[in-house]
Amino acid sequence: MAFRGSPLLVILLMLVAIALSAEAKVRYYRFHIAYQYMSPDCFQKLTVTINGQSPGPDIVAEQGDTVVVEVNNGLLNESTAIHWHGIRQIGTPWSDGTEGVTQCPIAPGETFVYKFVVDRAGTYIYHAHYGMQKSAGLYGMIKVAVPEGAVEPFSYDDDRSIIVNDWWHKSTYEQAAGLSSIPFVFVGEPQSLLINGRGRFNCSSLPSTTEVCNLTNPGCSPSVFTVVPGKTYRFRIACITSLSSLNFGFEGHNMTVVEADGHYVKPFVVENLNLYSGETYSVIVKADQDPSRNYWASINVVARKPSTATGTAILNYYPNPPSKLPPTTPPAGPQWDDTIVRFNQSTAIRAHPDHVVPPPTTSDRTILLLNTQNTVDGHTRWALNNVSSTLPHIPYLIALTNNMKDVFDSKPPPESYDYRSYDIQSIPSNPNATSSSSIYRLDFDSTVDVILQNANTLNPNNSETHPWHLHGHDFWVLGYGMGKFDPSVDVASFNLVDPIQKNTVPLHPYGWTALRFRADNPGVWAFHCHIESHFFMGMGVVFEEGVEKVGSLPDAIMGCGESKRLRRP
Amino acid sequence: MAFRGSPLLVILLMLVAIALSAEAKVRYYRFHIAYQYMSPDCFQKLTVTINGQSPGPDIVAEQGDTVVVEVNNGLLNESTAIHWHGIRQIGTPWSDGTEGVTQCPIAPGETFVYKFVVDRAGTYIYHAHYGMQKSAGLYGMIKVAVPEGAVEPFSYDDDRSIIVNDWWHKSTYEQAAGLSSIPFVFVGEPQSLLINGRGRFNCSSLPSTTEVCNLTNPGCSPSVFTVVPGKTYRFRIACITSLSSLNFGFEGHNMTVVEADGHYVKPFVVENLNLYSGETYSVIVKADQDPSRNYWASINVVARKPSTATGTAILNYYPNPPSKLPPTTPPAGPQWDDTIVRFNQSTAIRAHPDHVVPPPTTSDRTILLLNTQNTVDGHTRWALNNVSSTLPHIPYLIALTNNMKDVFDSKPPPESYDYRSYDIQSIPSNPNATSSSSIYRLDFDSTVDVILQNANTLNPNNSETHPWHLHGHDFWVLGYGMGKFDPSVDVASFNLVDPIQKNTVPLHPYGWTALRFRADNPGVWAFHCHIESHFFMGMGVVFEEGVEKVGSLPDAIMGCGESKRLRRP
Repeated sequence: MAFRGSPLLVILLMLVAIALSAEAKVRYYRFHIAYQYMSPDCFQKLTVTINGQSPGPDIVAEQGDTVVVEVNNGLLNESTAIHWHGIRQIGTPWSDGTEGVTQCPIAPGETFVYKFVVDRAGTYIYHAHYGMQKSAGLYGMIKVAVPEGAVEPFSYDDDRSIIVNDWWHKSTYEQAAGLSSIPFVFVGEPQSLLINGRGRFNCSSLPSTTEVCNLTNPGCSPSVFTVVPGKTYRFRIACITSLSSLNFGFEGHNMTVVEADGHYVKPFVVENLNLYSGETYSVIVKADQDPSRNYWASINVVARKPSTATGTAILNYYPNPPSKLPPTTPPAGPQWDDTIVRFNQSTAIRAHPDHVVPPPTTSDRTILLLNTQNTVDGHTRWALNNVSSTLPHIPYLIALTNNMKDVFDSKPPPESYDYRSYDIQSIPSNPNATSSSSIYRLDFDSTVDVILQNANTLNPNNSETHPWHLHGHDFWVLGYGMGKFDPSVDVASFNLVDPIQKNTVPLHPYGWTALRFRADNPGVWAFHCHIESHFFMGMGVVFEEGVEKVGSLPDAIMGCGESKRLRRP
Repeated sequence: MAFRGSPLLVILLMLVAIALSAEAKVRYYRFHIAYQYMSPDCFQKLTVTINGQSPGPDIVAEQGDTVVVEVNNGLLNESTAIHWHGIRQIGTPWSDGTEGVTQCPIAPGETFVYKFVVDRAGTYIYHAHYGMQKSAGLYGMIKVAVPEGAVEPFSYDDDRSIIVNDWWHKSTYEQAAGLSSIPFVFVGEPQSLLINGRGRFNCSSLPSTTEVCNLTNPGCSPSVFTVVPGKTYRFRIACITSLSSLNFGFEGHNMTVVEADGHYVKPFVVENLNLYSGETYSVIVKADQDPSRNYWASINVVARKPSTATGTAILNYYPNPPSKLPPTTPPAGPQWDDTIVRFNQSTAIRAHPDHVVPPPTTSDRTILLLNTQNTVDGHTRWALNNVSSTLPHIPYLIALTNNMKDVFDSKPPPESYDYRSYDIQSIPSNPNATSSSSIYRLDFDSTVDVILQNANTLNPNNSETHPWHLHGHDFWVLGYGMGKFDPSVDVASFNLVDPIQKNTVPLHPYGWTALRFRADNPGVWAFHCHIESHFFMGMGVVFEEGVEKVGSLPDAIMGCGESKRLRRP
């Protein structure tokens, strides 16, 4: 390469180039979404893939980078939208990818460009946020590294990524049709559990031998994590199940939990780790066991009575062949119904002492949300304070910034429920709920507490586990309790010292979970149970804050219903 | 009811009301499109339904009426569009319902209003024209009566309607994924044939007894046509198969063919009638057989080697119980591969002597279309003159009336092929074709001949039957031939005396079919093979004529891609 011009100018230009390279980068991805036959658990099924894969490609960036994802919808008849789970979308609320809340769906054949800054290092997820497409295979991992020179409060030699999922053989259309039916038809427990998109269905359980189930299909050979004896590894673990809470463990290896949802954790050691849909963790594992063999990595269903086989992968001690199966039985995990074990893990997760971000000491508003299973017009639904969520076809973000009346119910949803008299241990005495598209409008920059209160479902002696996920924010986890939250007593127990910040948190059976967040991110944000079918059946609310501060919306998010008119010529 | 005002005014108003009621009416329908489990052939399958039914409700109107259909898309993630097959949409080209050609698809949750005049009595069909939704169950019948006082050239005591279809147990998603795969994966022959949405799958052929296949399900009890001995009936018959050509017959009863695609036929008597996808007929049947028993109505696959059981319904002689099965075997129809029989039926269909509409004696342009199976970039496709059709995501009608460049390929597609040297009896020597979105632009009000030329597929000694359907027009059927069309010889054989007008016509194996139409309907019109998978794989062309005469397009057809911008605020 020959330079023209003065040597000084050349040197100056080179210095500028070096300076820029240390600056934030733009990470560019192209996602082509299409149906494709895959056999993730050896059973052939039509899968929604990204660039021919499920899970899709990892998005890898460094804190402060801008990520640009050009999503081309190659589905035949279906629209889509992708949510960047855990990314707060500060300044880009239109890139949150939540159909009905922040954007119109991306029509077949169209391309939509998501562009957002990953402002905090950590482990995140992306997944479809439209219909039940997440469950059909549209998901993947986001890994954001610390900026060059920054030091994390733990060390490791190398890192590995794990994304776990549950999997059904029935299509999401069939599942959704069942959920909408009267009487409600549930698809049942998953056929298999997947680690990095691979599981193993017992083909011989099928009524006849069939070419659609083939245990020798290389597409369902187990995932392998190769480690070098004596080295230390960071495993980034993301849980993107549609239904199941899972327990993850490496046979014979303890794990030190160091990160949760992008925040540093006060390290604690576990033999196995409970994972709720939408959560991410990093754990440190030392390859310090007998190096002459391989070990199992395993996932087991907890919090629901399992009828799905343990999901397995191979922890491969180099130089053993990856295909060499461990001589043992994969860990079975804890008792599925030992709520105390899971409760205790939840309360063990605190902010790392060097990374505590203290919460505001008081809140301006408390929203108490009773989680119940209900019926609306004969349909089985989930409701918060007896209101079951329905999303409008014109997204709130568009409706609110364009003063479109009648798009959604403007009556505010209830702030609380009759907590003095409601019996959370019993089937609702009146199971009827109402459907509404109403939203909570929060004062900008105010501090909001949300208390999630669990209760009995429509079945006797049953209360389910709900992983709640908040868009656009991290919240402080102020506490968990068993039984009914009593404002006059339980507020005093809040941890204001070292609460972890998270974006997803479990609500345990018959228990409560208390969160606090600052309503400081202009936009409209979903807060919902991350179980695909529960959200589909109305288990969510929507928060608006500072929507008047949201600048001009990109044309590209418009395009449904009357919002077509808003696009500028 | 009390009238105020002068008695004279009241009488005058009443007279006006009576006069108006004799005028054209508006027929208003509401279609709610949704997935629902149905068991049309006793096997439970997720079906696209209209108001909970498949087939959907009959649309019934009188010639000159305006039909308004408010289509609400209740599918979860999928868009839709409905075509009114056989309705020419004179003055309303935007209501043709052809996604990619005349409108953007109707997004989930949205409502689109089709409004059109049914300007000619006859039997027509409606069906989805998007993806493969027609095959998933979205179809029904349109019956347009003659105006009050008008006399048809045949008489009958009562009428009955029959719509026949083929049915698969695999979802259309699975079918489409197979068609798009390399190598091409074909779903195979249908599992059953349906008469008015009811068939009978042999559940015992399944590998195990399963609750999803239940022969006692009332949803798959056979369709019944009750007749009174001695009376004469008009049977309106519509064929909406996705693949199969069918042969229809009533056991022991001849049929007199009197209408085809809305045009009166010079009556001819048949024992059974070949039906191609997209065709409609009326036949006259006298209930003149032994009245002590019932008879079979049956459909059998022709033109492809059948592996699907005969589809049956009951011709019920009153007062025999409808459930009383005939003591006989249902008619098996003619030999499936007897092309001559089907060719002869095609040539027998002429215009009724009192209803001949003479065609223009010459044409201004002849387009000769070689029908071949090809490969494009490794994909199996169908092509016309080696061009395989792809539809743009912004419909032609919108692009052409708004001068949107780059939406489609503006290079004209080929007018002909090398008919002197091409060997139609052999596999294409070069099977490679190209894909294109190019269209034929026709001079307004000109007369156009189209010669469809069949040929060998990619398999040796195989030429398939293709039912070709033209939107926006009826064409005159000038002739059929076996072998290769020779312009210097075969034009002389054209029937210019009494050709029938139709909108759908078969192209027989290794044969040709000649059509003539006037390009006098301003708009953009698809012309394609009506086999769902063939059209999906590129077997179609598009005609534009007088698009500059199309008035202002309704906003509602906009909404995809850049056409969002065209909606008026």
